[in-house]
Amino acid sequence: MKLLTVGTVAFDAIETPFGKTDKILGGAATYIGIAAAALDAEVHLVSVVGGDFPKDYLRMMNERGIRTEGIEVIEDGKTFFWSGRYHNDLNSRDTLVTELNVLENFEPKVPEAAADAEVLMLGNLHPAVQLSVLSQMKKRPQLVILDTMNFWMDLTWDLLMEVIAKTDVITINDEEARQLSGEYSLVKAAKKIHTLGPKYVIIKKGEHGALLFHDGKIFAIPAMPLEEVFDPTGAGDTFAGGFAAQLVRSGRPDFESMKTALLVGSAMASFTVEKFGTERLLETTPELLRERIAAFRELTAFEAEI
Amino acid sequence: MKLLTVGTVAFDAIETPFGKTDKILGGAATYIGIAAAALDAEVHLVSVVGGDFPKDYLRMMNERGIRTEGIEVIEDGKTFFWSGRYHNDLNSRDTLVTELNVLENFEPKVPEAAADAEVLMLGNLHPAVQLSVLSQMKKRPQLVILDTMNFWMDLTWDLLMEVIAKTDVITINDEEARQLSGEYSLVKAAKKIHTLGPKYVIIKKGEHGALLFHDGKIFAIPAMPLEEVFDPTGAGDTFAGGFAAQLVRSGRPDFESMKTALLVGSAMASFTVEKFGTERLLETTPELLRERIAAFRELTAFEAEI
Repeated sequence: MKLLTVGTVAFDAIETPFGKTDKILGGAATYIGIAAAALDAEVHLVSVVGGDFPKDYLRMMNERGIRTEGIEVIEDGKTFFWSGRYHNDLNSRDTLVTELNVLENFEPKVPEAAADAEVLMLGNLHPAVQLSVLSQMKKRPQLVILDTMNFWMDLTWDLLMEVIAKTDVITINDEEARQLSGEYSLVKAAKKIHTLGPKYVIIKKGEHGALLFHDGKIFAIPAMPLEEVFDPTGAGDTFAGGFAAQLVRSGRPDFESMKTALLVGSAMASFTVEKFGTERLLETTPELLRERIAAFRELTAFEAEI
Repeated sequence: MKLLTVGTVAFDAIETPFGKTDKILGGAATYIGIAAAALDAEVHLVSVVGGDFPKDYLRMMNERGIRTEGIEVIEDGKTFFWSGRYHNDLNSRDTLVTELNVLENFEPKVPEAAADAEVLMLGNLHPAVQLSVLSQMKKRPQLVILDTMNFWMDLTWDLLMEVIAKTDVITINDEEARQLSGEYSLVKAAKKIHTLGPKYVIIKKGEHGALLFHDGKIFAIPAMPLEEVFDPTGAGDTFAGGFAAQLVRSGRPDFESMKTALLVGSAMASFTVEKFGTERLLETTPELLRERIAAFRELTAFEAEI
């Protein structure tokens, strides 16, 4: 099986209580791609960058096995740029700059080699872009995973509903689940979201972990408690990438496999936050990942009988 | 083994988005006692009430096997009264009335039959009261569990440090752990709290579950996602009571037993929030508890190998 993802490839400039960066490599598709490649999944990106995007970044992706034919380079355009400053608790942030640049008129083009991907991860973007990618697939993928956010609920409700209706798995945070459903209880929110289309609802709760809802069943996974969260940028995308890639590897996108995929996604994300940007994720080895997953098992396992 | 707990026995008047109550039975020791008795643990309460406290409540406790010789009745005094209003999200509340009444000059008296309890649960009260109970024990209990809150950190820091130094297990919420330690990261906070005395640190995160820290190890348990949280009053105390009682039952207060005890405490607490006050907790049967614990296992179990 192979994974296709559409999302941003971007420059980020990040400030945290621990320091700040210049423009560094960022974007949802970047994190998803690197996470998936680290899991040895065949992964294709669809995105757009400007002439200012270093060829070295694309080369780095290719060396890791990430397929980038779907990344359009608009030579006389500029790459999407986001800058943000995290507060002391690292749970909230202010956006300082958003320059859409080439993203403003982004028309995604799915390469021939990726149009038959069995797993499609629609990264957080305008729902019209997500719908365009979906319409370019040769046949409906076995699994369509959607990431979105409150911004699209506020601005493009009807289009968003159209994407959601075509989605198998939706990943959103708790506040967004409440906004999307109008329900405070996450159990009720998930039930309502099921009726919009997705058979699987993943609610991300940051440092509190995530919940997976399916067919009346619930699975809860904590986040790995970390001594130091250095930079949360990309954690959600890394999670999504690890999740999608693990499903590609399993070849069996069902509830049981999704539990494992949540574990893998959480483990990958716990690396991302340890350094700025993609730095720590790029250092992650299969050995480190196995250790982190073992730590997750220890974190959650209990043996004793009542 | 037996459990002794000191804490409030009180009247509560509660307002939630779903309704309001008159003065009903409340108090930390009440919830702890009922939870422990539901688990068939021998449990003794130390507390104080006024002449206005219905004898029926004491009779109800005794019928459930709760030992109440340690509840002093001050006939010409009034019982501690708390009234609060929960906000729509049920995660925050305003205190409307706090009448300390007989609690103001509370001098706890540990009954002879309870002074050799192996497990001592110091419910959330003035640290001087907690120290007094500790000093009345025939010998140091095998396990001293402390519940406290930000209020005592603000007002009685030195005395609180004295209790904490004599404590094996401390249960506090995430904000309190941060205040107590001066560390934002909960991993760092727990490390610092270990140095104050407690070998075990339990950080309660409400709807996000709880974390147990011990000797470099961490165990995470989610809260049961509920369709309806009706009234959160007493959930923390029920959790503490279920936790302590399960350790009494296990007879082996070590890290592995504490994982199970956290599970039992969480399961008990998930009942308490389903109705006003103690109502739902009083309806809980061993059969219901077994079902809820099975639901917890399903919520957290994953089998698949990576």
